[in-house]
This record gives sequence, C-alpha cells and structure tokens, in this order.
Amino acid sequence: MIYFDNAATTYPKPESVIAAVNNAMKMGVNVGRGSYNLAAASGDTVFSAREEAARQFGAEPENIVFTKNCTEALNLAIKGIVLKEKRKPIHIITTDLEHNSVLRPIEKLKMQGLCEYSVIKTGESNEQTINSFFSSLRRNTRLIVMTNASNAFGTVLPVAKVGKLAKERGIYFIVDCAQTAGNLPITIEKYNADILCMPGHKGLFGPMGTGMMILRKGLLLETILEGGTGSYSSLLTPPEISPDRYEAGTINLPGIAGLREGLKFSYKNREAAYLKEMELIRFLYKEISLLPSEIYTPFPENYRQMPLLSFNIKGKDSSFVGEMLAEENVAVRTGFHCAYLSHKHFGTAGIGTIRISLSRNNTKKEAEEFIYRLKKVLNKI
Amino acid sequence: MIYFDNAATTYPKPESVIAAVNNAMKMGVNVGRGSYNLAAASGDTVFSAREEAARQFGAEPENIVFTKNCTEALNLAIKGIVLKEKRKPIHIITTDLEHNSVLRPIEKLKMQGLCEYSVIKTGESNEQTINSFFSSLRRNTRLIVMTNASNAFGTVLPVAKVGKLAKERGIYFIVDCAQTAGNLPITIEKYNADILCMPGHKGLFGPMGTGMMILRKGLLLETILEGGTGSYSSLLTPPEISPDRYEAGTINLPGIAGLREGLKFSYKNREAAYLKEMELIRFLYKEISLLPSEIYTPFPENYRQMPLLSFNIKGKDSSFVGEMLAEENVAVRTGFHCAYLSHKHFGTAGIGTIRISLSRNNTKKEAEEFIYRLKKVLNKI
Repeated sequence: MIYFDNAATTYPKPESVIAAVNNAMKMGVNVGRGSYNLAAASGDTVFSAREEAARQFGAEPENIVFTKNCTEALNLAIKGIVLKEKRKPIHIITTDLEHNSVLRPIEKLKMQGLCEYSVIKTGESNEQTINSFFSSLRRNTRLIVMTNASNAFGTVLPVAKVGKLAKERGIYFIVDCAQTAGNLPITIEKYNADILCMPGHKGLFGPMGTGMMILRKGLLLETILEGGTGSYSSLLTPPEISPDRYEAGTINLPGIAGLREGLKFSYKNREAAYLKEMELIRFLYKEISLLPSEIYTPFPENYRQMPLLSFNIKGKDSSFVGEMLAEENVAVRTGFHCAYLSHKHFGTAGIGTIRISLSRNNTKKEAEEFIYRLKKVLNKI
Repeated sequence: MIYFDNAATTYPKPESVIAAVNNAMKMGVNVGRGSYNLAAASGDTVFSAREEAARQFGAEPENIVFTKNCTEALNLAIKGIVLKEKRKPIHIITTDLEHNSVLRPIEKLKMQGLCEYSVIKTGESNEQTINSFFSSLRRNTRLIVMTNASNAFGTVLPVAKVGKLAKERGIYFIVDCAQTAGNLPITIEKYNADILCMPGHKGLFGPMGTGMMILRKGLLLETILEGGTGSYSSLLTPPEISPDRYEAGTINLPGIAGLREGLKFSYKNREAAYLKEMELIRFLYKEISLLPSEIYTPFPENYRQMPLLSFNIKGKDSSFVGEMLAEENVAVRTGFHCAYLSHKHFGTAGIGTIRISLSRNNTKKEAEEFIYRLKKVLNKI
C-alpha cells in the first residue's frame, strides 16, 4: 500500500512506539493511585514523557497536559481562556484556514453568549495576513486562535509574528499545531504563544488517542472537565496545580508510553526529514500538474507549505477518484477534511479535494509509483 | 506481586486485549477519514466494539459513545443534560458516596449558576436511601446522578428503584457504573437510566484510556467538546447524530480495539466470576477482622457489596501501611480514593483507608498469601 494520508494519522508507527504501547499494556497500572512499585514505574513513564515534550517545546514538564486528541486540547484551551475572562462576551480572532476543532468550539461559545468572533481572510503574503489581524482588532479582543498550517491545503501561517502582535497587546494566543508538531521547530517562546495544542499521533508518531495542550509558565485556565486527580481529594473544586487540574480521571498510560517514543523518534533528524518530504511533495506537485488536474495548494516552498497538497482531477468528483485510488491500493483522503471554510478560501467548497499528505516514511519510489497508479486511474475514468 | 488494586484498573489485562491493541498499533489508521481499505477495516473494528457494548448494555450501537475515561463520560453526561435545560438553575440530587468525577462537575455547574444540588445521605437500607431521594425532591429537580456502587467502600446502591422514581417524574437519571460495569448485569432498561457512564479499563478489562457514555434511545445532549467529526463538515455546529456529535476528533483506535476484546472477556461467566470474587472478599473480611483492624465496609453480601473493602490497622496511617505492603510486593490503594464525602459518611475523613479491590484474576492462594504478608507487616510496625 502507498500510504499518503499522514495528515490524518502517520502510518506505520515506529517499532519503538508499538513496543512501548505493548509494554505498557503488559506492565502498566493506574498512575499515582497506589504506592506500590508498578504504580511508581507507570508514573515514571508518564513523567518522562512530560519531560521529553517539555524539552522539545520549551515548556516545563508540569505544563504538558496530556489529552485524548488535539480536539480536546483545543477545547480545553479555547474555553479555558474564555471562561476565565471576567467581562464577556470577549472578541476572538481566528482565520479562514481553521479546522472544525477550532471553529466549532468558538461557534459554541458564541451561541452561549460568551464570545463574538472575526474570521480573517488569510492573504497571499504573510504581511497581508498580519494586516488582516491588525484591522480586525477590537477593544474587547482578548484571544487569537490560529492554525500553524492548513490541514487541507498545507499553507504555513506566520504564527510567530501574530503571536508578537498578540503579546504586545496582552491578547491570549493559542496555536493549533495539528499539522506541524514533529515537523517544524516549535516552542512556546518562538511562537509567542500562551498555549500550543497538538495531536500525538500525527507528526509526533505516537498512538491515536493521544494529544497535548502545552501551557506557558504561570497560565491558569478554567476547567472544562473535572473529576478525580489523585490529589487534593477533599476539595470539591479542581486543584490549582498543573497538570492535575486538567487531567481528571485515569490517563491513557499505553498511549502516553507510546507518545514518549514517538516524541523521540520524530525529534531525530526532524529538519532533514521535513526537507526530504518537501522535495517529494514538489516532485508530486510537478507530476500532477502535467495531468488534467487542478492543484489548489500553492507551490510547496520550504517553510511556506507543509508536505501535503490538495488537488482534483478536472471534472471528476474527489470521492470517486479517491475510491478508484483505493482500488489501486493507494491511501489518500478526499472531501472537506473537516475544514469547510478553507475550501471556501480556495474555491473548492462545492467539490472537496483529494489530499495527499506525506511523512518521513515515504520514499521517491512510492511517489513515482503513486503517479503511475494515478495515471492508470485516469485512463479508466 | 499480589495485585489487589483492581478498582483503579484491572491488572493484568487479558492476552486477547493486549493482542488487539498491538494489532491496531500495527494496522490501524484514522477511522472514517479515508476511503481506502485500511481505513474501512479500522472503522469495522470500532463499529463492532459498539455492537458488542450495545448488546451487553441494552443500547443501540450508535448510542455507544467512546470516551477517554469514565470521568469524561460523566462530564459529557451531566453537563450535556444541564446545558440543554431551558430554565436554569436546575436542581440536581446526588449521594454522599460519589466520586469526585461526579461531585466536581456538579460543583462547577453550581459555581456557574447553572444548578443547585442536594447530596443525600445514603442509608443502612435501600428503603432509607430511596426515602432520602424522595424527601430531597424539589419542584425544579431535573436530574439525579448517582453511583452504582461506592468506589471506596463497595456499597451497592438501589439504582433501579431510584431510576424508577426519576422516570415517573420525568427527571433525568445518570448512573456512574465505574465499579460495576463488567461485574453486575447492567442495562439501560433495567436501571431505568437515561445515561450509563463507565470506564473501559476496570471491570471491562480494556486498556486505560477508554471509557463509554451510553445513551438511551432518542436522547440528544448539548455538547461539551466540539470539533471535526468526519461528517457534516460544512456545519459550524456539531451534527445532531450520535455518536458523531460526542466523539469529536480522532478516536483512540488501539484503545477501542482492546476494549472490544475486554468486553467479550468480561461478559463470559460474569456472574460466576463476581460470586467467586465475593467469596474471596468475605474470606479476606473475616481474616482481617481477626487482626487489630477497623473495617469500614459492611459485611460483603452478594449484590449488596462489590468485591472490595476499606480498612485500617488500628492507630496506623493508611499510607504508611500501604507502603509497608508495597515492600512486601502487595499492591493496594490508600488514602481517600477521590471520594472524600464517602469518607465523611464512614467516619474516615481524617485518616483515609487501605482499599483492597479484587478481579477475577485473583485466587484463594493470593488471598491467603495477602493475609500472611499483612501479618508480617503488623509484626514489624
């Protein structure tokens, strides 16, 4: 199989990740809820996963909050900020390249009367994008939430600069790193971010069922999910210490054990891997553009795009082509990729796209073979 | 090791569960986000897990909502009901045997002005408990949330009868099955419940990182976590269909694959397993009562108690004894078990308890060996 659906989840997972999950399934018990050796060992695994993530993203281990996916992280982050603000509704700015995991929580808050929001049109250039943020600022703008890169089209946004703009005005800044964590060099400081949200199972190569919310030092959020934390049991309110406050209930030990190994795996040669993937995506871009196709993704320049592209075969439905490719044992994704507004931006709202997304597992040979099979499909339809 | 901490998570997990997780780590991709074969196979795994759970708990597959733990399920359930009610604050009734995963979400809603609540004192008899519910009813009582059995003391509560009381009055009824799922025969209908919440990793023998919220047919909740669902992408609000509405973002495929096997495993000979565990806990009860101890759990009669008990060694701190037992390679849990109010009920609020909790893995030999090692510890301190 040619697996070009790595933006949904990376596949296959590294051996070290699979082994760590398996080991945790065999040896893992509930962390911090007993004083016996196995519980302590499980606790050590989780803490060292926190340390690894903290090192990579420039945070403190206690500010690494494990979640079930990036969506949970974004909900905890966005609502955690909005609920803590005294004067509501606050004004939020976000972009037209966001995933539903950003747009739907914000829309929900709006329906509850807790916020109002502006969706800025991202520009051809970073300057245009930043200017759009500028001109959308209101007196009650208290939060900017934006994606690091479009999941549907791969466009990288100027998060560090927007973060600077936010910081200078005391506006909270949340970055959705769903498509960039494990691929780009990201730190809280470099991005001028208050919170980074990311899945564990995409660029970080961990298991599905994992994600992280990473908080800047000293930031305390309102909670969305409350429960037992194994600490301060006598309080009816969540403890004020991180990560306990945000990780109520039993945590996903096998997932986190796997994520720890995924973090290590993806960190190794990260930049070289990214540059190799970008070369492959450029090769695919050029080859596809020779076919009767329409490519919506801008030409994949390093650090301006992620190694993914969205296209259609002229006059053909994306799902239909996707199914034909599946018959050729090629895995791509078709449709709207849970990011409908971005399709409006790129003019594909009525039709969806075929999305190819790479990981460091992919090779030149696969890329060539993909083009061969795509041509085969074209000859059939 | 003697593992008597099964109320935290069952250990060891069945071979079939470990194998299913491992297989999903090797072969699993993101469900429903691609049309290729591997995605379809992963989707089939998840759907058949829903079918298995639906069969066991008397629900429809689409009303099985997978969560990361029981705490998430309880938050989705409690807040999902309260937020959908038009006239707030509503009145909630709960009990003094609840875990913080019930009490903290309710307290949070109270602080937000969305509810007020009464905590009833559970009685010596089921009649007393039901009368307490009766006398706490108010005109605006719209929700009863209660545990099926105390996680700290093992007491089983008369949920079916309370459910009947609720149903007759059009009051929503949520049951926390954290300690009973996989052990007692539970169905939506038998319990007269609107929602059952449960962990996947305790009596159901699935992996940590799994849980379920099971909805009665036709019940639509407000959402707490919104995001991409792979369906109705163009809507800025969550789809109104279950389970999509409640499962935003990538789901924990390895966990759910494991849970499917855990469901099958625990269902087999469930009643015989429970009765065997109860015999063991009675043996332990009798042996411990011969020592200078204080047992807080009522005598473990079948179907009145779960196979767990809470005790202390007279004059000794529970944590200290727990650590001594750990040195003897015995795993128990000590402290407050995230259920502080229940300690007030049993008079152990200042000191906590040592909790022993069994699973079908445990044997008579282990129980005897436990008593031997406990005596050894007693001789040392």
